[in-house]
Amino acid sequence: MTNPTACLLVIGNEVLSGRTQDLNIKFLATRLGEIGIPLREVRIIPDVAETIVGVVNEVRARFDHVFTTGGIGPTHDDITSECVAQAFGVPWEPHPEAWARMDRHYKPGEFNAARQRMATMPRGASLIDNAISIAPGFTIGNVHVMAGVPRIMQSMFDWLAPHLAGGPPIASRSVHAIGLLEGRIAEGLKAIQDRHPGLDLGSYPFYRANGSGVALVAKGPDVADAEAAIAETTALIREMGLEPVVGEPPV
Amino acid sequence: MTNPTACLLVIGNEVLSGRTQDLNIKFLATRLGEIGIPLREVRIIPDVAETIVGVVNEVRARFDHVFTTGGIGPTHDDITSECVAQAFGVPWEPHPEAWARMDRHYKPGEFNAARQRMATMPRGASLIDNAISIAPGFTIGNVHVMAGVPRIMQSMFDWLAPHLAGGPPIASRSVHAIGLLEGRIAEGLKAIQDRHPGLDLGSYPFYRANGSGVALVAKGPDVADAEAAIAETTALIREMGLEPVVGEPPV
Repeated sequence: MTNPTACLLVIGNEVLSGRTQDLNIKFLATRLGEIGIPLREVRIIPDVAETIVGVVNEVRARFDHVFTTGGIGPTHDDITSECVAQAFGVPWEPHPEAWARMDRHYKPGEFNAARQRMATMPRGASLIDNAISIAPGFTIGNVHVMAGVPRIMQSMFDWLAPHLAGGPPIASRSVHAIGLLEGRIAEGLKAIQDRHPGLDLGSYPFYRANGSGVALVAKGPDVADAEAAIAETTALIREMGLEPVVGEPPV
Repeated sequence: MTNPTACLLVIGNEVLSGRTQDLNIKFLATRLGEIGIPLREVRIIPDVAETIVGVVNEVRARFDHVFTTGGIGPTHDDITSECVAQAFGVPWEPHPEAWARMDRHYKPGEFNAARQRMATMPRGASLIDNAISIAPGFTIGNVHVMAGVPRIMQSMFDWLAPHLAGGPPIASRSVHAIGLLEGRIAEGLKAIQDRHPGLDLGSYPFYRANGSGVALVAKGPDVADAEAAIAETTALIREMGLEPVVGEPPV
């Protein structure tokens, strides 16, 4: 019943420079939790070959699955694919199926050298399809290489997810209370966490125009355990004279 | 003229579970670029002591500055401060100034054990003030420990930034073209990148209701170099029969 683990590599100077607000982390974190492959670490790294190769090799040894986003387009800064080949110590070469698909897709003369790079992959890679772009992602070993553009990445993950052997989904139950201060509930909350060591019991302050407070969230593979912890937390909030609201706070 | 480097550690299960959309990375990436301390890596890690201690020690040796967000509140899952003390091998003990401020702030009896944890810091830490919360962040060595709540973190960074010795700001110049395809400009773009090795020349497709295309962005400490590369890119776009628009694409 142990869940396999996931690490995400976000590859791209544009996230590190602040130009782009990443939207892939939250999507993949949520979806991976749902299929029981919880995300345990994210690294955002630049388009630097030595860094990509080193980090891919480090994390593929430490996690059951590694997902990468970014760097598989046709331009000079798209180096993820060749770096993954280097990390695995295999040739980077035309993938017959990807090459054939793209060759059919483009008009004569338009499947140029830059686009051919998108059909060039580590030897042994299997394709990850998507409904939006002709260029596929790929899996090699436990590393899944996907696009950085969110809607293409999401389409690739939709295709990939049924092929991954997950564990039990990570259940999430929550309760919140307007007017609650973390410093008042901390001690009682720690006692609840100690009684439920198989859960992550988190405390998250929120600040909203219609009332600030704290959301308490229990996460873990055992639904009954998460529900029990939230029932105890709810009782604790009532003891403090506040009105608990089960579920997410109103936005 | 070499720029000092930065690494950001985002500490918190809520980002890894997909519950929270991180907003701190983009803010810090942008602001650090402006003061010439470019962000070179981000790690998002869970509230697990062994992980935090190990990663802090790894990255403080590799980067000139390490910034952390998250995990400095009063609840049981707020363990960043004691982990940083452990990483530095120093006692985690009441910080006299932080303790005195918080003791004055709370009513008698309300400065409880949970809140006292927020005034407990690695020995030798210096405080990072903020305009919103009574609880300060702190700096020890090259590690700057800040809150996870964006508006508190931002206030802490506003206070901290003038105390950091940066390098030349990272200049950014860009041009975009509606209707441009990356696969057509890739080869010419690579030649421009090769002529400007001190820059990062990035290519970013965008998809918008009023027209899709590509944004080309040159970033580096030398403004004239960035402007020259964008001038060459602009000429390249014209050669392809498209109309370049200098600056960011309209949203």
